[in-house]
Amino acid sequence: MERVSIKDLKTDAWLGKDVIDTYAVRKIELKTVAADGKQFCSLELGDATGRIDAVLWDKADAVFKEIVAGDVVKIKGLAGKYRDNPQVKIELIAKLARGDYNPAHFLTASSISRPDLEAGIRVETASVSQTYLVKLLKAFFGDAEFMRTFLDAPAAKLWHHAWVGGLAEHTIAVCRLARAAHKNYDLLDLDLLVTGCLLHDIGKIREFTTGTFIDYSDEGRLVGHLVLGDQMLMEKIGKIRDFPDELAKRLRHIVLSHHGEKERGSPVVPATLEALIVHHCDYMDAHAAAFTRIIRREGLQNKRWSEYVNLIDRYIYLAGSDDDRKAGDDGNLKLF
Amino acid sequence: MERVSIKDLKTDAWLGKDVIDTYAVRKIELKTVAADGKQFCSLELGDATGRIDAVLWDKADAVFKEIVAGDVVKIKGLAGKYRDNPQVKIELIAKLARGDYNPAHFLTASSISRPDLEAGIRVETASVSQTYLVKLLKAFFGDAEFMRTFLDAPAAKLWHHAWVGGLAEHTIAVCRLARAAHKNYDLLDLDLLVTGCLLHDIGKIREFTTGTFIDYSDEGRLVGHLVLGDQMLMEKIGKIRDFPDELAKRLRHIVLSHHGEKERGSPVVPATLEALIVHHCDYMDAHAAAFTRIIRREGLQNKRWSEYVNLIDRYIYLAGSDDDRKAGDDGNLKLF
Amino acid sequence: MERVSIKDLKTDAWLGKDVIDTYAVRKIELKTVAADGKQFCSLELGDATGRIDAVLWDKADAVFKEIVAGDVVKIKGLAGKYRDNPQVKIELIAKLARGDYNPAHFLTASSISRPDLEAGIRVETASVSQTYLVKLLKAFFGDAEFMRTFLDAPAAKLWHHAWVGGLAEHTIAVCRLARAAHKNYDLLDLDLLVTGCLLHDIGKIREFTTGTFIDYSDEGRLVGHLVLGDQMLMEKIGKIRDFPDELAKRLRHIVLSHHGEKERGSPVVPATLEALIVHHCDYMDAHAAAFTRIIRREGLQNKRWSEYVNLIDRYIYLAGSDDDRKAGDDGNLKLF
Amino acid sequence: MERVSIKDLKTDAWLGKDVIDTYAVRKIELKTVAADGKQFCSLELGDATGRIDAVLWDKADAVFKEIVAGDVVKIKGLAGKYRDNPQVKIELIAKLARGDYNPAHFLTASSISRPDLEAGIRVETASVSQTYLVKLLKAFFGDAEFMRTFLDAPAAKLWHHAWVGGLAEHTIAVCRLARAAHKNYDLLDLDLLVTGCLLHDIGKIREFTTGTFIDYSDEGRLVGHLVLGDQMLMEKIGKIRDFPDELAKRLRHIVLSHHGEKERGSPVVPATLEALIVHHCDYMDAHAAAFTRIIRREGLQNKRWSEYVNLIDRYIYLAGSDDDRKAGDDGNLKLF
Amino acid sequence: MERVSIKDLKTDAWLGKDVIDTYAVRKIELKTVAADGKQFCSLELGDATGRIDAVLWDKADAVFKEIVAGDVVKIKGLAGKYRDNPQVKIELIAKLARGDYNPAHFLTASSISRPDLEAGIRVETASVSQTYLVKLLKAFFGDAEFMRTFLDAPAAKLWHHAWVGGLAEHTIAVCRLARAAHKNYDLLDLDLLVTGCLLHDIGKIREFTTGTFIDYSDEGRLVGHLVLGDQMLMEKIGKIRDFPDELAKRLRHIVLSHHGEKERGSPVVPATLEALIVHHCDYMDAHAAAFTRIIRREGLQNKRWSEYVNLIDRYIYLAGSDDDRKAGDDGNLKLF
Amino acid sequence: MERVSIKDLKTDAWLGKDVIDTYAVRKIELKTVAADGKQFCSLELGDATGRIDAVLWDKADAVFKEIVAGDVVKIKGLAGKYRDNPQVKIELIAKLARGDYNPAHFLTASSISRPDLEAGIRVETASVSQTYLVKLLKAFFGDAEFMRTFLDAPAAKLWHHAWVGGLAEHTIAVCRLARAAHKNYDLLDLDLLVTGCLLHDIGKIREFTTGTFIDYSDEGRLVGHLVLGDQMLMEKIGKIRDFPDELAKRLRHIVLSHHGEKERGSPVVPATLEALIVHHCDYMDAHAAAFTRIIRREGLQNKRWSEYVNLIDRYIYLAGSDDDRKAGDDGNLKLF
Repeated sequence: MERVSIKDLKTDAWLGKDVIDTYAVRKIELKTVAADGKQFCSLELGDATGRIDAVLWDKADAVFKEIVAGDVVKIKGLAGKYRDNPQVKIELIAKLARGDYNPAHFLTASSISRPDLEAGIRVETASVSQTYLVKLLKAFFGDAEFMRTFLDAPAAKLWHHAWVGGLAEHTIAVCRLARAAHKNYDLLDLDLLVTGCLLHDIGKIREFTTGTFIDYSDEGRLVGHLVLGDQMLMEKIGKIRDFPDELAKRLRHIVLSHHGEKERGSPVVPATLEALIVHHCDYMDAHAAAFTRIIRREGLQNKRWSEYVNLIDRYIYLAGSDDDRKAGDDGNLKLF
Repeated sequence: MERVSIKDLKTDAWLGKDVIDTYAVRKIELKTVAADGKQFCSLELGDATGRIDAVLWDKADAVFKEIVAGDVVKIKGLAGKYRDNPQVKIELIAKLARGDYNPAHFLTASSISRPDLEAGIRVETASVSQTYLVKLLKAFFGDAEFMRTFLDAPAAKLWHHAWVGGLAEHTIAVCRLARAAHKNYDLLDLDLLVTGCLLHDIGKIREFTTGTFIDYSDEGRLVGHLVLGDQMLMEKIGKIRDFPDELAKRLRHIVLSHHGEKERGSPVVPATLEALIVHHCDYMDAHAAAFTRIIRREGLQNKRWSEYVNLIDRYIYLAGSDDDRKAGDDGNLKLF
Repeated sequence: MERVSIKDLKTDAWLGKDVIDTYAVRKIELKTVAADGKQFCSLELGDATGRIDAVLWDKADAVFKEIVAGDVVKIKGLAGKYRDNPQVKIELIAKLARGDYNPAHFLTASSISRPDLEAGIRVETASVSQTYLVKLLKAFFGDAEFMRTFLDAPAAKLWHHAWVGGLAEHTIAVCRLARAAHKNYDLLDLDLLVTGCLLHDIGKIREFTTGTFIDYSDEGRLVGHLVLGDQMLMEKIGKIRDFPDELAKRLRHIVLSHHGEKERGSPVVPATLEALIVHHCDYMDAHAAAFTRIIRREGLQNKRWSEYVNLIDRYIYLAGSDDDRKAGDDGNLKLF
Repeated sequence: MERVSIKDLKTDAWLGKDVIDTYAVRKIELKTVAADGKQFCSLELGDATGRIDAVLWDKADAVFKEIVAGDVVKIKGLAGKYRDNPQVKIELIAKLARGDYNPAHFLTASSISRPDLEAGIRVETASVSQTYLVKLLKAFFGDAEFMRTFLDAPAAKLWHHAWVGGLAEHTIAVCRLARAAHKNYDLLDLDLLVTGCLLHDIGKIREFTTGTFIDYSDEGRLVGHLVLGDQMLMEKIGKIRDFPDELAKRLRHIVLSHHGEKERGSPVVPATLEALIVHHCDYMDAHAAAFTRIIRREGLQNKRWSEYVNLIDRYIYLAGSDDDRKAGDDGNLKLF
Repeated sequence: MERVSIKDLKTDAWLGKDVIDTYAVRKIELKTVAADGKQFCSLELGDATGRIDAVLWDKADAVFKEIVAGDVVKIKGLAGKYRDNPQVKIELIAKLARGDYNPAHFLTASSISRPDLEAGIRVETASVSQTYLVKLLKAFFGDAEFMRTFLDAPAAKLWHHAWVGGLAEHTIAVCRLARAAHKNYDLLDLDLLVTGCLLHDIGKIREFTTGTFIDYSDEGRLVGHLVLGDQMLMEKIGKIRDFPDELAKRLRHIVLSHHGEKERGSPVVPATLEALIVHHCDYMDAHAAAFTRIIRREGLQNKRWSEYVNLIDRYIYLAGSDDDRKAGDDGNLKLF
Repeated sequence: MERVSIKDLKTDAWLGKDVIDTYAVRKIELKTVAADGKQFCSLELGDATGRIDAVLWDKADAVFKEIVAGDVVKIKGLAGKYRDNPQVKIELIAKLARGDYNPAHFLTASSISRPDLEAGIRVETASVSQTYLVKLLKAFFGDAEFMRTFLDAPAAKLWHHAWVGGLAEHTIAVCRLARAAHKNYDLLDLDLLVTGCLLHDIGKIREFTTGTFIDYSDEGRLVGHLVLGDQMLMEKIGKIRDFPDELAKRLRHIVLSHHGEKERGSPVVPATLEALIVHHCDYMDAHAAAFTRIIRREGLQNKRWSEYVNLIDRYIYLAGSDDDRKAGDDGNLKLF
């Protein structure tokens, strides 16, 4: 039997039918009816295709003690509506262990394969020859555990590269743009520049949690990925004997200033050419990836213009694009 | 006898000495002494190395009628000071005809040779194969007169690429960055993108006057290079039979939106991926060129930090750069 | 039988009843039900009183091929709801030819008659006596086709003068305010000022499409009415022999700077007294027209304050206005 | 013997010569030489043509006790320089009584005569017929002492109408623009509108001191002319029996909101049509007067562009203006 | 029988049941069904726990003439839904006189008792010893009617201290913070500072109406509490013989500048140390009270983070707070 | 013989006289005369009273190799002028060793004694009783070397507390304000709050260099004191076994968010009540200290208003302050 995705479950086709399938728990709260003191669980279920509200009345208290946000559960329930929103009334619920479900059902992954992403990163690290930078990159990317986490990380919750592998995709794209800048500007120190690109967003590994859905971690919100990245950088540097002070300062400056302006959360603004270029490449790729996602999604609907995009205060022009180009998934990077 | 540059003329070494040499007239005003009604000319002289004030008392009225800003003159005068600023007291003055002086004395030129710049542009135009874009580029760059003016133009009055050939340098740099972006993002139409890069700043040809010094033209200030460029574009398109409307709209959108935000003078913001990329590449190159100029100028003085740069509200870090890199002139582009 | 306006059709009085009438198609999309692959058309219908969603299941594919946004159709359908929003379930649909419907059902028109608007414009053009400006105005307003389009154009999609004839109303209002300014400030060149007022918004003719509803055209969004107006101006000027350069520059500066600030989309800011005054008169009339519309609409409901007006971040005070004044339609200009 | 204006005194023609004439004291401080404890007075002298520094060594302490900023003094002194700035070394100084000097030497006055300004105001007050507004206007402009102060007041320290009579000039200009607006918009209550225009800036009477030069008063800076004007308004209204509350609220709203935006110092933004129009007319006249002053001052020097005007971040275009127009003083209003 | 709060009435438990109870009328409008011309009243009912929509068909016209917003009514009605929002269909309605209902049902009150709030204010006024400030404070807080109104007033409609007694709570909190500042900075005049704190927000008494719910008064929106407070201050000062001018100016400057920046509605910015400190204490307390309210409300729901708080553009971190602290009502001030 | 302070040296009393004394070298550059290739050193000398330019011609190259910015030198030179600015022509120069000069001549120190400052800090640290916070504070303030550096540090280069001991003064003042806040708001965790205050600015120890004058260090500009402070915090926490994660996150959030807004350089904005209060107290004290410094400096000159203060865009009102209060040095904190 085929899986019932949440996107399908929310259509009228499923209204009034029973569903038995596996979903991630995004939220779970225990609530009380004011009138009679009865308790129930209010849940949000999710998978890679969307989210749906759910409610559970039976043994709510016990269920609430056992299941937490992030768990994957198998449910039997009735697809209905509450206040005109799709809602599942859960009858049976059971927590699944890690091996008992397919993680790919819950998190979207990059359209580029994991080995290809890894290879893309390796190409960049291999290009660096300055002794201390080689050691530093090895300390990060030579560590299998780090590499695994890096390849799992998204680059954002919603806006751009919001999928498993998104951080790697974005990092590779930024490296490539920076190489082109280096061909233009001979004051640039290429090894420092590439290292800066590779490490500029490593803090995102700790900024996001990506068990069964992408969300901000507590330290992601309280500290932010720029400072988390700087901290990770200084920890590794602290373990490399005689790592030059000057180089350390320049690297952490790249990480901390890469948002380009204080208004966008950089505690310092770029004061070196390398930091300036990393900022511009980062910004260009984030913008380009967001445009791409919108053009691909909305461009196939025969519309001339996208819906209004609040985050960048504009409509995007869709007409006149070649249909072949628009087809495909959200991915934006051509790796080969 | 060697030329006395204005930079030298302002040093104490020339104080009190007579100078006979050739300078450009940047400003000339006829003034009257309130006390006795006597008239004099107040001038500003210039060459590629700087500016100096000058005063002329003899036959001021006649001189004022003959000489206008932009002329090159031969003067005999006394190097002195007025209110503690260097000033030349002019005794004799004569206007020179175009062939009688060396233009290179008055305007700084790109560190890249004119043939190299032209070749750099030709590489880009030759890469375009879409029929109507080929016709359009030919209408511009195939016109010798346009090409001559294009290669003479600066990209700014002061901030970046403020020299003869600056527009060509900047245009080539932007094309190259855009090509790198195209390698990343397959939704981009490469021919449209490169054409957009080549034409994005053509309005600067009319925004600046560059006889013997760079200044804004009247229409440069009243209309601006974005709209002047759009107008030049539409004039050429109007002469190409059956030029597709869709393509015309996309091209002029690139030209008009390339400053990226309304606050920076774009009447519309980028709504296509090509326009977005041209904007980012333009912005990155302008920033990089300004950083380069400051690092080269100030980096050789054994300072750790530049003076405060008002336009970008920051100091630039100079220490730790390789001295070899810093040597050389203001130029920033590696052409080959 | 009386027409069923969309405003009425959305009330509960029509719920569950059959409706047969004529509406404009504002949007039409072909969609597919994920569950069973069935296709249907999702439409938005409109007339001068509002918009309503509609759905059509029968021969959706064929209908979608025949009917496009902007068409006027006769439908037979059932007034119902979907997810608690009014929706018409269309059973029969047929496209109407231009002569087969009354355009006034679909677009609101100015409360001032077309001949009165035309007369109002003629008063202004007739007041200009400077030779080249007379020729220029004749090239525009002496062209019957231009005049027809001008009188059809709105001045906005939603905010102020968003109706047929709105552009003419706004233009006349701005001319009159500018004349008052001229009585105050003798440096103003009256002929240039009036011409500037008459032409400042002509680009709106091309910025909006106004078949059966007002919307932005593609070039409206990609180029904007300031640059479109400048282009139209330069085309006419190009056909007038010996039109003085100085005058051309001053006119296009008025058109391009009339939004007053870069943040509001002017690529250049007013640098002449005439441009400054056109900007202020334009801004005052737009503001006053928006206030008037809100006071008239909400003022009759016995409220002391309007709802919050997001676009100008404030409530408008309605109490204490004379009821006679508030009565009437949205129109704001007293022509005679 | 002719008066030596400060403008002349600062030219080289007076360098090293003795001057005996009458000037206003703009500042006076008692200072001590660190090295030897000797005291001296550091002064700033002024008249309608400018300012000059002065120093006085003899009996500095006694002079400092007698003379305060705002006094007019007769001095004998030597025109010289200090650190390259013009400076008068005062040998003798004596304070003059009010009748002993000509006030016109110290403050610039409007180019429109006082009776004409008064007549201009009377035309506006006479046009109002609503009972309570008539009483209110009489309470202000029917009071000879108020009228005298009103006609003496400037509208600013530097930027626009910075002269005796400036407030009246500006007030008349604003009334006239508002009348034109009333011809356009029939929702406007004309009597309320004109009264609002007449009273919008009355707080400036207390915001500035205008003895021998224009400066901010303490309450001008601590309270501001909007709130001072509102206070003056409420004092008069408090003395008119049965003045309608609704009318009072609408009037003070006009006064308090006339700067249009909080950023420009209005504690509330316009929420009535009358307040909106007063704001726009006020703003237009201030802008137009500032442009006029700059065009008149700089336009006669054969320059195409003004110097950069910091307050409005732009150059003003001077070329092409009719010379006749530019001639004359700073005044901007055509009264008849 | 227990009261049916609006919070309860909106739950599904009451759906379809009859309710007979007492509510405040927040809004009442008379509307007409387009289709058949039938009239009905559309109401908003409220109490201290929330708001609910209501509709009344019977004798709508008569009811509309008798009942106005702010009245308290007894109704008999049916709890239902309209367009999926809770709505009461009113069958019977009767207006209640002031004594016939319990005001505490309609307005939330401070968690601190009225006598305690009054005592808190008295402690502050009693601390002041400067003669004229003592007289001034007596003129306000020695007036029983003023004191009653002051203790009834809220400090805001929604954001912080939005309850009866909120103004007193906020005023006491600000006084205490200012005393701490005085212990740090010896330039502060303590009596002036405390008086400034006590009076800084008195205008709020007139800015809000608080009959049966908190709303802005007309003059609250048209004039604002800063200027209303300044006016109240000047009225009292005007009645105190020989009140020093200097002191009056300093006090009104505190009141008018306490929002700290023009953008936040202060017509002048703090120019004295006392005004600066009052501003900072006011701002800190408003912020702290808003955080407290959110932490208390959302913190008990086992969430780690609050919902997004638009007004301050952030999430608030809830995890890790001691549960004891979070329990309790919205109140934030520890009085003893 | 008494020391010649730089403030004195710049007066005319010293013009043309020989001076022999000890100064700090703030800048030293080796320059070349264009005309004849001669080399000279251009220096800036300083002490606690000010700065002066200096020039040295003799053995410039050798001197430049030996002396660097930050050194203290004994010079023999002639007090003169160059281009109307005071300048010392140095004849003899010799570098002094650390023990050979009095550091107090070069850096201003707090008006509060070092033991008093230390005691002030100890009072705060002693108040904390939570186990892990006690350990953490001991790790910082129990380390004599840290304490020494902390007591030496300024809180700024120019704006507030720009002297030795300034960081301690500011830190104590912030702690005290926060204690007052805690008395108001019972949700605050007092130990966490006080610890946050004590540590919020520790990064300033590394942000500034304070040998013989205060300047930014390289990492001060490239990293900033917020991130440097966070790094120091995490280093100490890393050495405390079992330091709770939750507590660590809350502390670093206080340090990183204490500037309150991204625009002012905080990478994250306050999301906990403790972080919010530390921000407000920090901001209030910085503002109050800057006001105090200006009032003290300018208030004794019999002026009613300070000069315009660019950094906060306003004049400060000086009149009416008690002279006793104004007397004294720049210090602002009352410690006892």
